[in-house]
Amino acid sequence: MRCYDLALIGFGGVARALAELIRDDSARLEATLGFSLRVVAITDLNLGSLLQPEGIDLAEVLAMPRGANFSGMPGGDRDADNERVIRESAADIVVEATFTNPATGEPALSHVRSALQSGKHVVTTNKGPVALAGAELAELAGVHGRRFEFEGAVMSGTPVIRFAQTQLAGTRIASVTGILNGTSNYILGRLGDGLALQEAIGEAQALGYAEADPTADIGGSDVRLKVAILAEQVMGVRIPVEQIPTTGITEITGAEVTAAAAEGKRWKLLGTVERHEDGTVEARVAPVALGEEHPLAGVSGATNAVTFDTDLLGQVTVSGPGAGRVETAYALLSDIIAIDRAGGR
Amino acid sequence: MRCYDLALIGFGGVARALAELIRDDSARLEATLGFSLRVVAITDLNLGSLLQPEGIDLAEVLAMPRGANFSGMPGGDRDADNERVIRESAADIVVEATFTNPATGEPALSHVRSALQSGKHVVTTNKGPVALAGAELAELAGVHGRRFEFEGAVMSGTPVIRFAQTQLAGTRIASVTGILNGTSNYILGRLGDGLALQEAIGEAQALGYAEADPTADIGGSDVRLKVAILAEQVMGVRIPVEQIPTTGITEITGAEVTAAAAEGKRWKLLGTVERHEDGTVEARVAPVALGEEHPLAGVSGATNAVTFDTDLLGQVTVSGPGAGRVETAYALLSDIIAIDRAGGR
Repeated sequence: MRCYDLALIGFGGVARALAELIRDDSARLEATLGFSLRVVAITDLNLGSLLQPEGIDLAEVLAMPRGANFSGMPGGDRDADNERVIRESAADIVVEATFTNPATGEPALSHVRSALQSGKHVVTTNKGPVALAGAELAELAGVHGRRFEFEGAVMSGTPVIRFAQTQLAGTRIASVTGILNGTSNYILGRLGDGLALQEAIGEAQALGYAEADPTADIGGSDVRLKVAILAEQVMGVRIPVEQIPTTGITEITGAEVTAAAAEGKRWKLLGTVERHEDGTVEARVAPVALGEEHPLAGVSGATNAVTFDTDLLGQVTVSGPGAGRVETAYALLSDIIAIDRAGGR
Repeated sequence: MRCYDLALIGFGGVARALAELIRDDSARLEATLGFSLRVVAITDLNLGSLLQPEGIDLAEVLAMPRGANFSGMPGGDRDADNERVIRESAADIVVEATFTNPATGEPALSHVRSALQSGKHVVTTNKGPVALAGAELAELAGVHGRRFEFEGAVMSGTPVIRFAQTQLAGTRIASVTGILNGTSNYILGRLGDGLALQEAIGEAQALGYAEADPTADIGGSDVRLKVAILAEQVMGVRIPVEQIPTTGITEITGAEVTAAAAEGKRWKLLGTVERHEDGTVEARVAPVALGEEHPLAGVSGATNAVTFDTDLLGQVTVSGPGAGRVETAYALLSDIIAIDRAGGR
């Protein structure tokens, strides 16, 4: 059976969920997918680095007590040293899952470059490298005969990029419009229930939807990065992130949300990429009051969804979770499946 | 460039829409898909049969006046003679698009068998052969090293079968629930607007959604066939069509629909396949009053949609058109694309 060796760069919630899946469910995955997975390297800011070419015991690593680190283990080191591990490990696939600055894409961007340059496939759910350097990294992957896959960068485990490329192949996509930030969608819903913005944000934080600093969610910059990715990956046009007009939901009041609801409309923060008749492509992020008949109007809570407007099929919509550690770990698995189906190593 | 030769068995609205697409859009399709399509045989109850191994002039055939037929054209015959054309044509792919009895699957079922036996791939949107003999035909295809593809049999051009097999690969699907008949969904919506059942049926017929005999749509037997297909193709379990408990929408009154709406619920005719904890799989067709938070509650008009309940991703929903000649022709094209991506000839 084919076996792919993985290097996990970053061992936070999502990478741990992937490791748990491999630990607990490998027999079923092997039977249904036709390949097996083995982790041969892990790096983490707190744990350090661990290189074991014969395969790391995931049960042992996942059971390590808080405060422990990899030093003293065979192949272990107190220092994370991501770049060295990426280059030196014998992994087939680098799983890039570090905490990354979305504005600069670092350190993920450098990690992806190093991995591709050293002949390894890369899967990631980090938006930054894809939004900022998607074309460069795709070219680099091509030069080295490897793949760069990032399905989870837009809607976590819910398919959108490969959905467009495979399930809608042969159609002309006139526009892509999405609810791409679950936190702001949840907050808009709660404004409609009568909460003030600050109350709704506090509730979203308590539920674990919103970060301590919710600016990227409610200000629209998270959606803007995802829109840049959709423009390039689905519409084939690179639009620099800073050129995408972006309005968040901070100016919307509960009164506006309830007034819209009385007319059968629902406010949604939409990311949109649209191809005009003259061939130009426009991208924007803005709140829109959608009529009830719009396929995105009924998408509530922290769910994400995207509607494709196509020539042959009209409107097709995919909705599902837009976050969550297991859901995002599945995005990484789906990238690995895509690499396998494209011929693997 | 790879070129696939097609035999169009049945030349009604859907096959004509596919022929128009090839006539009008082949340069774009070749550029984006990497292969070209040529029609080398057509049969039709009214037109007869036409075998031209060097390629049929589709513009000419599509412009034929009503009442004309293929006799007198090179390779033409007054008689449709589907079986002979399927066996004798040099087609790579047989496009089965005849008017077929959904209860017996004929004549499509025989056509699919003949095509596979003579070493040709088959694409179809006919439900009958898939629901009644899906496993037999898949095995026959395997024996002959060909493919049998039928994405359009469930939701026309909206992806569902390959979506489950590719985009959800590696997840455990606990249930599949869908709005799989646009006519009944449209009628339920109009009952909610205050129309009586007969009025709503008449309106659906006037709009071209409902057949002259709407029994299969409103009685649930159309959905039942689709549920049988989903059980086998998505859940891996064959459930004979006649063993699927089926209730249509004929007993639902407008008063019930409006009463449910007052509680924030919407009646939908659902086709469901569910895997229970003990591993058994249950299928059923019945109207259900869904709460507004259910992803299928907001699916209105003639739109179709399916929700997958998965272990790793939770609920993922795909919605889009469930009928239409161009949309269904796209389903056939998507099947051809799948054949090409699987290695073609």
